[in-house]
Amino acid sequence: MSEEMKIPYKIYLTEDEMPKDWYNVRADMKKKPAPLLNPGTGQPMTAAELEGVFCKELVEQELDETNRFIPIPDEIRDFYKMYRPSPLVRAYCLEKKLGTPAKIYYKFEGNNTSGSHKLNSAIAQAYYAKKQGLKGVTTETGAGQWGTALSMACSYFDLDCKVYMVKVSYEQKPFRREVMRTYGASVTPSPSMTTEVGRKILAEHPGTTGSLGCAISEAVEDAVTHEGYRYVLGSVLNQVLLHQSVIGCETKAALDKYGIKPDMIIGCAGGGSNLGGLISPFMGEKLRGEADYDIVAVEPASCPSLTRGVYAYDFCDTGKVCPLAKMYTLGSGFIPSPNHAGGLRYHGMSPVLSELYDQGMMRAVSVEQTSVFEAAEMFARVEGILPAPESSHAIRVAIDEALKCKETGEEKTIVFGLTGTGYFDMVAYEKFHNGEMVDFIPSDEELQASFATLPKLG
Amino acid sequence: MSEEMKIPYKIYLTEDEMPKDWYNVRADMKKKPAPLLNPGTGQPMTAAELEGVFCKELVEQELDETNRFIPIPDEIRDFYKMYRPSPLVRAYCLEKKLGTPAKIYYKFEGNNTSGSHKLNSAIAQAYYAKKQGLKGVTTETGAGQWGTALSMACSYFDLDCKVYMVKVSYEQKPFRREVMRTYGASVTPSPSMTTEVGRKILAEHPGTTGSLGCAISEAVEDAVTHEGYRYVLGSVLNQVLLHQSVIGCETKAALDKYGIKPDMIIGCAGGGSNLGGLISPFMGEKLRGEADYDIVAVEPASCPSLTRGVYAYDFCDTGKVCPLAKMYTLGSGFIPSPNHAGGLRYHGMSPVLSELYDQGMMRAVSVEQTSVFEAAEMFARVEGILPAPESSHAIRVAIDEALKCKETGEEKTIVFGLTGTGYFDMVAYEKFHNGEMVDFIPSDEELQASFATLPKLG
Repeated sequence: MSEEMKIPYKIYLTEDEMPKDWYNVRADMKKKPAPLLNPGTGQPMTAAELEGVFCKELVEQELDETNRFIPIPDEIRDFYKMYRPSPLVRAYCLEKKLGTPAKIYYKFEGNNTSGSHKLNSAIAQAYYAKKQGLKGVTTETGAGQWGTALSMACSYFDLDCKVYMVKVSYEQKPFRREVMRTYGASVTPSPSMTTEVGRKILAEHPGTTGSLGCAISEAVEDAVTHEGYRYVLGSVLNQVLLHQSVIGCETKAALDKYGIKPDMIIGCAGGGSNLGGLISPFMGEKLRGEADYDIVAVEPASCPSLTRGVYAYDFCDTGKVCPLAKMYTLGSGFIPSPNHAGGLRYHGMSPVLSELYDQGMMRAVSVEQTSVFEAAEMFARVEGILPAPESSHAIRVAIDEALKCKETGEEKTIVFGLTGTGYFDMVAYEKFHNGEMVDFIPSDEELQASFATLPKLG
Repeated sequence: MSEEMKIPYKIYLTEDEMPKDWYNVRADMKKKPAPLLNPGTGQPMTAAELEGVFCKELVEQELDETNRFIPIPDEIRDFYKMYRPSPLVRAYCLEKKLGTPAKIYYKFEGNNTSGSHKLNSAIAQAYYAKKQGLKGVTTETGAGQWGTALSMACSYFDLDCKVYMVKVSYEQKPFRREVMRTYGASVTPSPSMTTEVGRKILAEHPGTTGSLGCAISEAVEDAVTHEGYRYVLGSVLNQVLLHQSVIGCETKAALDKYGIKPDMIIGCAGGGSNLGGLISPFMGEKLRGEADYDIVAVEPASCPSLTRGVYAYDFCDTGKVCPLAKMYTLGSGFIPSPNHAGGLRYHGMSPVLSELYDQGMMRAVSVEQTSVFEAAEMFARVEGILPAPESSHAIRVAIDEALKCKETGEEKTIVFGLTGTGYFDMVAYEKFHNGEMVDFIPSDEELQASFATLPKLG
């Protein structure tokens, strides 16, 4: 116990202890994730095909299934030092509040201006774009965390940054837009009249408030039709999980420093960037049979791709201009309820995580949003950090698991990912405070209808 | 030079290295700050009189001019560990961008949910209120940083928290209000009908959008008319500067750890809480003749209490219910232009800082807001932190001083305080981006008119 108390509230690595490599979990997977397919031919996308859309070195990373470690370039490590290593926090106050014998830790990724972990991949993607001599990049953003992160990264490397922001977010989150403008990005509400696919969607659905899938289509079209531009994406892709492995590698190094072995690792999961990054080195040990961990993906009950989706090839975007990916999906036609406040609204899940889930290497649970905000508020009050709604999905399950330990007396060590802060989500908090927040669970019929939007493959 | 490069981007103290005492700069002042006066009798306020408004132990701290060190209670140190020690950042990227030989450091106090340094004193004031067995506390807030910080602190100690928020901010910053509600505080737009002084002000100025001075009057009335409540304040007072000395003590410890001696210490100054805290141990050395530092207060040209005010006894609030304080002041009738975006809008300056300034121990400069936002945007782009407008006053002068070094070739070491983040100030950033921000400097005639609101003392 006295040993126990030596663990500080916040474990910080030194800059020397920061990871020098990203960890590529695919190298340890016997059965690899299914490849991206060319929607025209049904054949795996070649590097040459992908390089029309993505930066060259990122394509190499996307396709690399053999190298376990990929060195982090010095330029990226220098940028990481502006906000990393991020703290691994021992949640002493939350444990006390819950009266649990469980030991709870969280890796806090919100201490940078983008407000989330998204910056870890944004700076990498901007670096490779700059290295390739590009003029700029295009992307989509929903809630705005990714767009903000990419704006910061592009500003650092003096790259042009064009962000297609889902129209409903553009209108509801003007401050997010202003942060992006502060970093010099141009922000266009999507769907827009600036792309062919945008004009087509607007013609078909005049009053639409947009979706991530639609904004992706516009950003991709913009990139491929402008010389010197490529498209970048903040989640789902293998390369993104690779970059985000810095979260997990730091977490593991911090735990190892104090001889702590977690029993359970919990992360929220939308497209999978945070969860995939957080769990990667732990999953590697599990895949190699060196250790066992209870790994839990938490998703919203209103957008339940892992818990209620199907594992199949699907479109990544609404305009169907992207390669097909095999993933747990609700179908690209799935639109979360407008009552859905808490992010994590993408219809599919990272192919890496989907395959690991299919192999039984991790489990998934879904939670309803009012219970998520209850957990968020409790956490904010005792731990002093205002969590993003996305992150609060993981908090909800961490609390539930800690309360189970209280019943059983188990002293489990629980680690969860606190991906970001909720400063730009006060509209949702306000709804919650005013008792106006409602839960939403799609019916089986609704899901069947959206599964019908899946592509029919040869 | 190789020695030089060993300084990390962020210097973190360990929890063991965190200050165990606050430093009371008044102990080292030969000529002490002038006492608070009872506005009725014109005599110094006694402890007994002050205890009607403030918590007992805080009154002791307010009046303590002899003890150089005041131990930080363990309960407060435990809370500090949730977000402290805060990083002292070497601004390598900003130095590179400016091409300056100067070495720039900033103490970043924005990495907590209140978004600013205000939490350092909020938790102390809440602690002493709890210890005294009070039900709750009342306060005012303008931009909302202090109210947020106090809400967090009260939530931690399970105290009721009533915040009077300047009406214009209440309406323009609904998200700030929601953060306070998340922490369980009640937030009332001021002036309100809930207090006598509020009703009086509303009757005299029906359309008023409120002011800090007015909100102070309401909060004080609320405290003294409700059993079990006391009033707390986030700046100006001696006790607040004492608590904020944790900023300076950490800064000095971090610099000492690497053998760095600053030439210049720069802080923004509204009521003086941040500046007073940041400079305190350095000022102590200067007062004792052990070292010399160029200490610079930066204030907005639109609210220039040090650079254009008078050093005199003045009312602290609009309703004139508070004790009189001797300070550099523009007169309690001074209202900053509605164009003024960047906080720091209080009419007076901390009596401690006022006295030190009057003794020539520090200097003051004023800056205009468009140049402040230019500095803020440059800083955000290279250092990756979106600064609060208040903090950006210090950034402006740090940049200016670093550019002077570029001309002269001097390798000065510049330390400035980065008090907080600008997440809730995007309306001001938007104005700046859209070219709608204007500068405002009060005319001599306007200042003369507001000096006329100074009390006539026997």
